[in-house]
Amino acid sequence: MAVYTSVSDEALAAFLAEYELGEAVAFKGIAEGVENSNYYLETTKGRYILTLFEKRTDPADLPYFIGLKQHLAARGFSCPLPVAAKDGEALRRLAGRHAVIITFLQGLSPRRPNAAQCRELGRGLAQLHLAAADFEMTRENSLGPASWPILWQGREANADALEPGLADKIESDLATIRGAATLSDTLPRGTIHADLFPDNAFFLGDRFTGAIDFYFACTDALAYDLAICVNAWAFEPDGAFNFSKAKNLIAGYEQIRPLQDDEKAAFPTLCLGAAIRFFLTRLVDWTDTPADALVKPKDPLDYAARLRFHRTAESIRDYGGE
Amino acid sequence: MAVYTSVSDEALAAFLAEYELGEAVAFKGIAEGVENSNYYLETTKGRYILTLFEKRTDPADLPYFIGLKQHLAARGFSCPLPVAAKDGEALRRLAGRHAVIITFLQGLSPRRPNAAQCRELGRGLAQLHLAAADFEMTRENSLGPASWPILWQGREANADALEPGLADKIESDLATIRGAATLSDTLPRGTIHADLFPDNAFFLGDRFTGAIDFYFACTDALAYDLAICVNAWAFEPDGAFNFSKAKNLIAGYEQIRPLQDDEKAAFPTLCLGAAIRFFLTRLVDWTDTPADALVKPKDPLDYAARLRFHRTAESIRDYGGE
Repeated sequence: MAVYTSVSDEALAAFLAEYELGEAVAFKGIAEGVENSNYYLETTKGRYILTLFEKRTDPADLPYFIGLKQHLAARGFSCPLPVAAKDGEALRRLAGRHAVIITFLQGLSPRRPNAAQCRELGRGLAQLHLAAADFEMTRENSLGPASWPILWQGREANADALEPGLADKIESDLATIRGAATLSDTLPRGTIHADLFPDNAFFLGDRFTGAIDFYFACTDALAYDLAICVNAWAFEPDGAFNFSKAKNLIAGYEQIRPLQDDEKAAFPTLCLGAAIRFFLTRLVDWTDTPADALVKPKDPLDYAARLRFHRTAESIRDYGGE
Repeated sequence: MAVYTSVSDEALAAFLAEYELGEAVAFKGIAEGVENSNYYLETTKGRYILTLFEKRTDPADLPYFIGLKQHLAARGFSCPLPVAAKDGEALRRLAGRHAVIITFLQGLSPRRPNAAQCRELGRGLAQLHLAAADFEMTRENSLGPASWPILWQGREANADALEPGLADKIESDLATIRGAATLSDTLPRGTIHADLFPDNAFFLGDRFTGAIDFYFACTDALAYDLAICVNAWAFEPDGAFNFSKAKNLIAGYEQIRPLQDDEKAAFPTLCLGAAIRFFLTRLVDWTDTPADALVKPKDPLDYAARLRFHRTAESIRDYGGE
């Protein structure tokens, strides 16, 4: 939950005057997202989300994120559409931050996704990959494999404090990943969401209605995005792997975009890499977040449990693939 | 900002099935309020707020709060209306909490109220008092003068740690208030909001569109409610008293409900009491809130500054009244 930046009435009114959206009739901070400040904004013309970008988002990346959402929406993929102001620009300034108004997307984020939702999410992820196929902008994955040894440096004792012996296992995982370092270059690449967790996916019942929060999107191996989703959707709160959910997720994806043999062969390593990525960023947040911070860091050990599973997986069949 | 209790999709769907509100199409935690969990809830029938009552709200008081809002709404005072389920009951259970769905109220809470809004707020407060005049339920003010010595007990060192010498001044204020202890019984009494801060008041432009968050409402001296508003609306962030805002607030109130002479005579003491009440509850929160809490406690010193002003005030004329 997060609203870091407050917006005065005068600032909001002056900001809205730059758009053709009428006047504000409701404005409420939303307790969602951990990177940026989000407000529910209702105007006399419709309903929107106002996002203020906080320090963790690099301003140089914002045109990419906005361009991607505009591209996806134009291709019929359901995602929030950045709204241009009267001068045609969607990316603006408010309360000392970069800011954007995006359209309001209906749907609910599943707190505990079911297998049918996993299948729909798989289809949605593949649709996103296909819709983005002709998106011409690129962005390096700043949290890709090259960043992991840097994130890890000096955190060994923190890992062992969480779980004795964990540091050695992470070292060994990083060695495995070094041995497969070319994967993300040789596999089919494209634009990936890179953070399509349940709280970034909307459903009405079991129907996928769209994805939000594209602020980790980048250019990388498409199958790595699916591996991130397996980590995010197919493990239970107690850390147990749910074979049925993973199987449905992969099957849904392959209904729209069948995986190549090399993607299938790489799948356990991609899943291991995805788990390392989220373990490491959570470990950094866990270690660095001041005790009085507004946002509670997520437990890195959730991902230590996933890593245990991925270390034993030998093929995509262990994930319900074929 | 606060969402303390999360609600699963299944629990929400089962809960909504008890109403005639259709199905949920959006559900977002709201970063507002510090006592309860609030969600923006959009269904196929309309837009609502779902409130889950956390531990600081006494369940025995909930029928009073709900009854009051129903009464005010029936009298044409704009406030969120509790929505009854199919069985006629508005107060229900969800996720282990007492819960209520209320209607969505349009308007924006002013971050920095202007004098025109203060006048409108004064009118709105008086309208609330008149609309509640024939509300038959009563509730003792659990944060009234009798509670202040209890809240204060053992906090002397905490006060002096915030500002050297503050404890003695608070002792002296409490003595002043003891000397005027009968005020809240002898002045005109009725139902008061008791927490009508700017974040609990909605406006469209300068027009007051309603009040929310009645969870401190109680039976007490009506003029004490106005004194709370003077504290909440007529001081600047730096602690400076804004004569024009207070004058407008009182004038707006008197346009609808003129104050009696005894209320005017008591006004400086009522303002002092209101400042003591918020100083003490903030001091308790400041002292007792764990460092890693999700909600940042508000600074008690904001009210130490108000107390300094009230100690020097001699009559309602010092507040812009007549």
